[in-house]
Amino acid sequence: MKCRKCDLKAAINMRQHKLALCKTHFLEWVCLQTERNILKYKMFSKEDNILVAVSGGKDSLALWDVLHKLGYKTAGVYIHLGIHGEDQYSTKSQILAENFASEHHLVLHIVNAKQELGKTIPEFSESNKRGKSKPCSVCGLVKRHTMNEIASKYNYDVLVTGHNLDDEVSVLFNNVLGWQIDFLRRQAPFIPAKAGLIPKAKPFCRFYERETAAYAILSNIEYIEEECPFSEGSTTIQNKELLNQLEHQRAGTKLAFYLKFLKAKKELFSSQEGDHFTDEIFSCPICGQPTPNPGNCTFCRMVTRY
Amino acid sequence: MKCRKCDLKAAINMRQHKLALCKTHFLEWVCLQTERNILKYKMFSKEDNILVAVSGGKDSLALWDVLHKLGYKTAGVYIHLGIHGEDQYSTKSQILAENFASEHHLVLHIVNAKQELGKTIPEFSESNKRGKSKPCSVCGLVKRHTMNEIASKYNYDVLVTGHNLDDEVSVLFNNVLGWQIDFLRRQAPFIPAKAGLIPKAKPFCRFYERETAAYAILSNIEYIEEECPFSEGSTTIQNKELLNQLEHQRAGTKLAFYLKFLKAKKELFSSQEGDHFTDEIFSCPICGQPTPNPGNCTFCRMVTRY
Repeated sequence: MKCRKCDLKAAINMRQHKLALCKTHFLEWVCLQTERNILKYKMFSKEDNILVAVSGGKDSLALWDVLHKLGYKTAGVYIHLGIHGEDQYSTKSQILAENFASEHHLVLHIVNAKQELGKTIPEFSESNKRGKSKPCSVCGLVKRHTMNEIASKYNYDVLVTGHNLDDEVSVLFNNVLGWQIDFLRRQAPFIPAKAGLIPKAKPFCRFYERETAAYAILSNIEYIEEECPFSEGSTTIQNKELLNQLEHQRAGTKLAFYLKFLKAKKELFSSQEGDHFTDEIFSCPICGQPTPNPGNCTFCRMVTRY
Repeated sequence: MKCRKCDLKAAINMRQHKLALCKTHFLEWVCLQTERNILKYKMFSKEDNILVAVSGGKDSLALWDVLHKLGYKTAGVYIHLGIHGEDQYSTKSQILAENFASEHHLVLHIVNAKQELGKTIPEFSESNKRGKSKPCSVCGLVKRHTMNEIASKYNYDVLVTGHNLDDEVSVLFNNVLGWQIDFLRRQAPFIPAKAGLIPKAKPFCRFYERETAAYAILSNIEYIEEECPFSEGSTTIQNKELLNQLEHQRAGTKLAFYLKFLKAKKELFSSQEGDHFTDEIFSCPICGQPTPNPGNCTFCRMVTRY
């Protein structure tokens, strides 16, 4: 199969777009599409200071690479969660994130959970009823809190994450299965600043996972290939497998599901109140971050309890 | 495993309800739950004349059996669609529907597509661009039209169909994947009368397919076991397989997906206009049935064209 734009052999064929491209034109296409998404969803501009949430995986490093190439002002934040498994998962990821930052002469903020919060994610999870079997909810809480804190401390304008289409569709699928209207209402490529929370953007939300992986591989970005050891058997992974079956049966299903959702949202939620953040917001007396209830926030309650 | 209500061996274990029952108590439970659904969704009463859409399959015959046992005034309608495959599908189904009616001394209206409309469903489909490969949309059109016609001609108060939870969830899943808001808005256990259309009810909408099958088998109802030969490889079947995987991973997923949808609908659509039927409705000059556009209705255009 040949590249649609030149005579070279295609490096990737994207069935859902009916588009095959060689390496050079594919890398160019990813940058172009990312720029389009940024503009389409009014995410940020070249003037903004952008904080990239970096995990050391393909999505976040590819995103950082693309934003840097496009000329955006970026720095990264890496949180060492203390997840090791058999293979020193967190430490390996950190090294890869640091390598990328130094090769590109970019700033990388590093937060070490054990050193700065007193415990690793598995340790927090052990001593927390909710995270006993799976530390994913504790991990999400720590990441959200810490990233918002770094963004606020260093005056970043927006936090960007490497969520790809498969991530977004898996979450959407789960929210639809349980008809969680508040979650549906809040799911978006860009979430504006509200009550002390930094704006959040997902410039890769329209790329299939195999496209971001192809970008990282073809760009020779070294990333951690293993999945987080705790993700095994998770609902997210189960959902992704089911959605891949659907995509295999009908190419383009995932992209259509997501884009039609974004369109439907306008009709479904237009006449209703914005979202929960329009409700009263309190300030946590310990960390100062916004919280929906008076008193210490969930994060500080977790950290101080143990 | 024992029946929860007596000491007998359970005939069925319903994981999603954490309920195992013997034959007698299961048959009793199905009747009780059906009655509850009828009341809960305000479907119809013992005074109403009920027309049961009978296909000869397990769902419609089980439903007719349950309604008859519960003391509702019912008659059936069977449409011979002229679908034969290798095994005289339509003719075999008709015999089973007739046997059930005569054994229970119930009226069964029979409409033969070839004799009354001039063509079988496969023949209509052959000469119709939209149904060339799959006659399912033509079949749906003919059934909807014919049933409404019979109901109107003989003054029935409500049309009931044997749609079970798996049917409803498969449709819901498809409507959600494509975010078809109008279809989502209209999907309900009971659709009231509007503009010349008979009310439609689905008293089995909360039963899993394996429950209606178990009811038919344990009641010794003879039904056609083959699926319609045209359903092979259909989106509905693909969806059902995926949803069965989900159900297997997390028991109760299908029921929760449906019930939470019904609840969410109230919130999502409450502030919006009812549905399409509130728009202007015209009367077809040929058949007199309601149609959303002036001039002959889709059914009459199809029948008179060929």
